[in-house]
Amino acid sequence: MEIRTKVFLRKGAQHRVENGHPWIFQSEIDYFEGAFDPGDIVDVYNSRQRFIGRGYINPRSQIIIRILTRQQEPINRDFFKRRIETAWRYRQTFLSEPEYCRLVYGEADFLPALIVDKFGKYIVIQTLALGIDIHKETIVSVLEELFSPAGIYERNDVPVRKLEGLDMRKGYIKGEFPTQIIVNENGIPFYADVDKGQKTGFFYDQRENRRFLQHIVKDAEVLDCFCHTGSFTVHSALYGARSLHSIDISEEAVSLAKQNAELNGVSERCKFEVANAFDVLRSLTDEHRQYDVVILDPPAFTKSRNNIEGAARGYKEINLRGLKLTRPGGFLVTCSCSYHIDRDLFKAIVVDAARDAKRVIREVEYRTQAKDHPILPAAPETNYLKFLVLQVVE
Amino acid sequence: MEIRTKVFLRKGAQHRVENGHPWIFQSEIDYFEGAFDPGDIVDVYNSRQRFIGRGYINPRSQIIIRILTRQQEPINRDFFKRRIETAWRYRQTFLSEPEYCRLVYGEADFLPALIVDKFGKYIVIQTLALGIDIHKETIVSVLEELFSPAGIYERNDVPVRKLEGLDMRKGYIKGEFPTQIIVNENGIPFYADVDKGQKTGFFYDQRENRRFLQHIVKDAEVLDCFCHTGSFTVHSALYGARSLHSIDISEEAVSLAKQNAELNGVSERCKFEVANAFDVLRSLTDEHRQYDVVILDPPAFTKSRNNIEGAARGYKEINLRGLKLTRPGGFLVTCSCSYHIDRDLFKAIVVDAARDAKRVIREVEYRTQAKDHPILPAAPETNYLKFLVLQVVE
Repeated sequence: MEIRTKVFLRKGAQHRVENGHPWIFQSEIDYFEGAFDPGDIVDVYNSRQRFIGRGYINPRSQIIIRILTRQQEPINRDFFKRRIETAWRYRQTFLSEPEYCRLVYGEADFLPALIVDKFGKYIVIQTLALGIDIHKETIVSVLEELFSPAGIYERNDVPVRKLEGLDMRKGYIKGEFPTQIIVNENGIPFYADVDKGQKTGFFYDQRENRRFLQHIVKDAEVLDCFCHTGSFTVHSALYGARSLHSIDISEEAVSLAKQNAELNGVSERCKFEVANAFDVLRSLTDEHRQYDVVILDPPAFTKSRNNIEGAARGYKEINLRGLKLTRPGGFLVTCSCSYHIDRDLFKAIVVDAARDAKRVIREVEYRTQAKDHPILPAAPETNYLKFLVLQVVE
Repeated sequence: MEIRTKVFLRKGAQHRVENGHPWIFQSEIDYFEGAFDPGDIVDVYNSRQRFIGRGYINPRSQIIIRILTRQQEPINRDFFKRRIETAWRYRQTFLSEPEYCRLVYGEADFLPALIVDKFGKYIVIQTLALGIDIHKETIVSVLEELFSPAGIYERNDVPVRKLEGLDMRKGYIKGEFPTQIIVNENGIPFYADVDKGQKTGFFYDQRENRRFLQHIVKDAEVLDCFCHTGSFTVHSALYGARSLHSIDISEEAVSLAKQNAELNGVSERCKFEVANAFDVLRSLTDEHRQYDVVILDPPAFTKSRNNIEGAARGYKEINLRGLKLTRPGGFLVTCSCSYHIDRDLFKAIVVDAARDAKRVIREVEYRTQAKDHPILPAAPETNYLKFLVLQVVE
């Protein structure tokens, strides 16, 4: 493969990329040598004319180039096959049930903007940038060769594609199958809807974190706020919780959560409620209710840097109430998936909440996302999930 | 119990303590009401005259007060008993083998400056501040009541006691027993010497981290630098490593490591070497040797804030060499127990090293110290260990 375009970075702009970060912004480019079409593969050089990576370009996107490789190797079917095989080997190494996993996690699997989730014999994909969307057919053919899936579904109905000049779409790529399927997480079956569910239909990113609950929920009264489709609830019940009170604002989510509780034979210990978790937290603290374990796994309170303060206030409020609702000796399980609220800020918010709630706390466990969502140390954006278990000592 | 002394903090000085941090420095005190002797229990008030905690005082120490409780409760045998029972319950909750654990981890168990390690039927204690040393007999009597240990040994031969005006000493407190004993870590037996070993004789703080090796060492050629008494080596061998090359500069440590390999029947796969790991890392990289897994678990390169730069250079050097010595697809396991090199700095050093070594890396796992070394979110000093597993992708 002939690369016809060279891109030279401005002086000073190269460090992030040379450290291993895969993104190049418009403003970091000094000049081009050669023409290109949107989506083309280009070679990137630093200001000292040294080759630093090969990636795809889209002048319409703020992230104009995403690096695919640090080698001058052809970007062809064989390249995508090797990348996907490497990703699969990684999952087989670190997951007990690799059939159910995020098989490709974009940047952290060196296939920027590509998401591939494996739900047993079904596969769901997202191609979130033009430069990877162009290779969708190739990628699908590799997935077919390697996994012979019964079906492949596309969940490209995401607004971020518009920034890349792509349309929003979803539907079958291969096979037709009922979109409500069963996935396994820590050996526990859950219903997921690959068509109507959020994102690709199921979140694997808390897998190891959910497993951690086994240490703290035995015989416990558990409050699960923002329970979504019930994974923390069902895990807790199967790990021996005495009773569960689970809340989510989405009727669809709660309906699926109920089905999941039924599927796992734990319904009689679960009370589900469609409600605003903020309101419920407020009224439960007003009633001086106490639980052995309180779980807070809210959706991201902010997706932009501009609203960090407002998001921090939201996290503080729910954590303050969560701490008050936890019996002394019990545990608060608190999460944040807002990338912009980093670990240190999140912990500071919790410390703040504990002071205001007059609770003495200690950290039992801090974890981030599951093993099939690896992290690039040079790209903090790949590290978004915070999972913190606190003991409320007094 | 009558508390005869009140300590009032300066304006602005109270925040750390009110957030849950247990230390008060000389400079933070405004005035005293009442007299006290070194080691006495005092009540601490903020500048708005609000009670914020009760602790012990030693005017000789930079940390003049360490908070024992946020309640106005008596500090007596019953108090120590409740604290130790709580600590024990915590270990029973989170450890699969609580008989072998750090039973009390000072500040994080709300018994500042007290260390109690449980080695099966033996107990080793350290009382590292005057205000806790005064209660040593009480604490020992509680330990006897709760655990009926076969022996209790004191390892107070540590220079930090001098800052408190205490002498350095070690020896039997209860029972006489051969000081070379066997401890269990992840179900694996290890020799430890409670008299001659470092600190209390065995480090439990990497327990869960060592267990993580099971995912990456199967059939691997492993290089274990700074192997100390061989725990990472023996874990790796038992988890299926093909061969081990283990290095430590201490003849005593290597001798014990060899015994540990023998005890576990893995000697024939282990090659031990008494040498400076820096030198060995240099010569192995010069020889272009490659391993599937490289483990770096050095002693703290700095114990003070003043030498962060020098320490960072040391960490960079060994990580650069460790990365070069790791085969593509293999793993670097890299640790730091220097509190002053925090997580973000440590990761930045590793990213730097990867750039210079021209390696593409991703983060597989980041962990901190074991569950029996809990963390106070408000007291970063309680969080010192960094355990990072990287895949060297290319």
